[in-house]
Amino acid sequence: MLKSNNKKMEKLSIVKIGGNIIEDEASLNAFLKLFSNLEGKKILVHGGGKRATHIASKLGIESNMVNGRRITDADTLEVITMVYGGLVNKNVVAKLQALHTNAIGLTGADINAIQSEKRPVKEIDFGFVGDVKAVAHKSIDKLIQADFTPVFCAITHDGNGQLLNTNADTITSQVAVGMSNLYETSIYYCFELNGVLMDFNDKNSVVKHIDSKIYQELLNDGIVADGMLPKLENCFDALRGGVHNINMGNTSMLTQENDNFTKITL
Amino acid sequence: MLKSNNKKMEKLSIVKIGGNIIEDEASLNAFLKLFSNLEGKKILVHGGGKRATHIASKLGIESNMVNGRRITDADTLEVITMVYGGLVNKNVVAKLQALHTNAIGLTGADINAIQSEKRPVKEIDFGFVGDVKAVAHKSIDKLIQADFTPVFCAITHDGNGQLLNTNADTITSQVAVGMSNLYETSIYYCFELNGVLMDFNDKNSVVKHIDSKIYQELLNDGIVADGMLPKLENCFDALRGGVHNINMGNTSMLTQENDNFTKITL
Repeated sequence: MLKSNNKKMEKLSIVKIGGNIIEDEASLNAFLKLFSNLEGKKILVHGGGKRATHIASKLGIESNMVNGRRITDADTLEVITMVYGGLVNKNVVAKLQALHTNAIGLTGADINAIQSEKRPVKEIDFGFVGDVKAVAHKSIDKLIQADFTPVFCAITHDGNGQLLNTNADTITSQVAVGMSNLYETSIYYCFELNGVLMDFNDKNSVVKHIDSKIYQELLNDGIVADGMLPKLENCFDALRGGVHNINMGNTSMLTQENDNFTKITL
Repeated sequence: MLKSNNKKMEKLSIVKIGGNIIEDEASLNAFLKLFSNLEGKKILVHGGGKRATHIASKLGIESNMVNGRRITDADTLEVITMVYGGLVNKNVVAKLQALHTNAIGLTGADINAIQSEKRPVKEIDFGFVGDVKAVAHKSIDKLIQADFTPVFCAITHDGNGQLLNTNADTITSQVAVGMSNLYETSIYYCFELNGVLMDFNDKNSVVKHIDSKIYQELLNDGIVADGMLPKLENCFDALRGGVHNINMGNTSMLTQENDNFTKITL
């Protein structure tokens, strides 16, 4: 639903970082400093990266890929719970505490924040993978109102005791949509590129603003294709769900100095 | 300090379970049902059990024991963070959610709940082991006031980004002492025995009540010795720190039906 709330809402930033930042200690530390300095209320969502794959292989658990996508069997879910929910999440929290950001690490099971349902088996059985069903925005807001900064890893639960592996981008957009009931929300998707590029071979050819009309033009001109297509479709879904704006670029977009990233609005 | 607060305080139960319960799925499920049914505000603290040792050995990390105590080197700390903070903690939280207890899993780093300092190196270098320095009772209370049930694993942090392995019994007593500023606190140490035994060979010879005077008599008579001595010393420390009463026994002491456990008061 599109929000038409005339009351001025407080701002909330939801920042997502991927595995490439998580895996590199220096990049992670630099990012966390930027995140810590980001003003206003905020939420961090992190992916897991290849660490889970490394540890799984050390434990003798084979990564089972179908059409380039990982199947989450019971053993793989255990590793993901250990690595994303434990190792990565708790080290990020400890590092944020050292930067005086009062972080609290969460899966979707904690405070029943994100309930999902196990993906139905069609052609492929993805195993213990969850599609988001409900975000407990009021419970998450209790943490924010207590001046805590939620740090989500990419794990949800089904409400019946089962943890489920869930895509971190989806968690980001769904949490942002949920929080849009209470806040003017901005999503920051931090990734390797500077933003959506006009020319994939020119990293500085950033499209600085995309709205529905420009998006349609980019689609018609074939600028947006392949990997970027589902990402942008998800962005417009989130915007239609009430998210105020979405920003895509490298981590330096969190500073005031850099305006070389893509801002997406309806 | 001994509390002399005339105002009637609300009750808070802090329940600790050990590795033997964590490791056995049926015992864990049965315990969580009891814990879920426990009335009033409550906190759970869990140990880790042998799972960490199994996973460490699978990962080729040797468990280094000195005088029967585990040395926590950097690799071991990673495993502990994965297993206690991730695998065990998040599965317990998901199971509690299924029982309609709105649990939130925590290390001492989350909301800066428990700050510790790395144990100084004397004869033995214990590695990344932390001794509790401060409990953020007001922050923990924000979670409790929001109707969340904190579930602590045995990990703390030093405030400078370093996670530290910390004894679960110590976390239990220190959190209870901290929360005694705000609540009438009771600790429940769930373990294998029915309580403190008069005769170690008779599992039903439970000493039902111990206070400072009885404790002195038990000491004089040599009833309390070996493993039980430091446990009881810690109990009296916690009671002198403001904890209202401490109960030791098997998990069924959480029900109304069983009074065959040891209650300890000043």
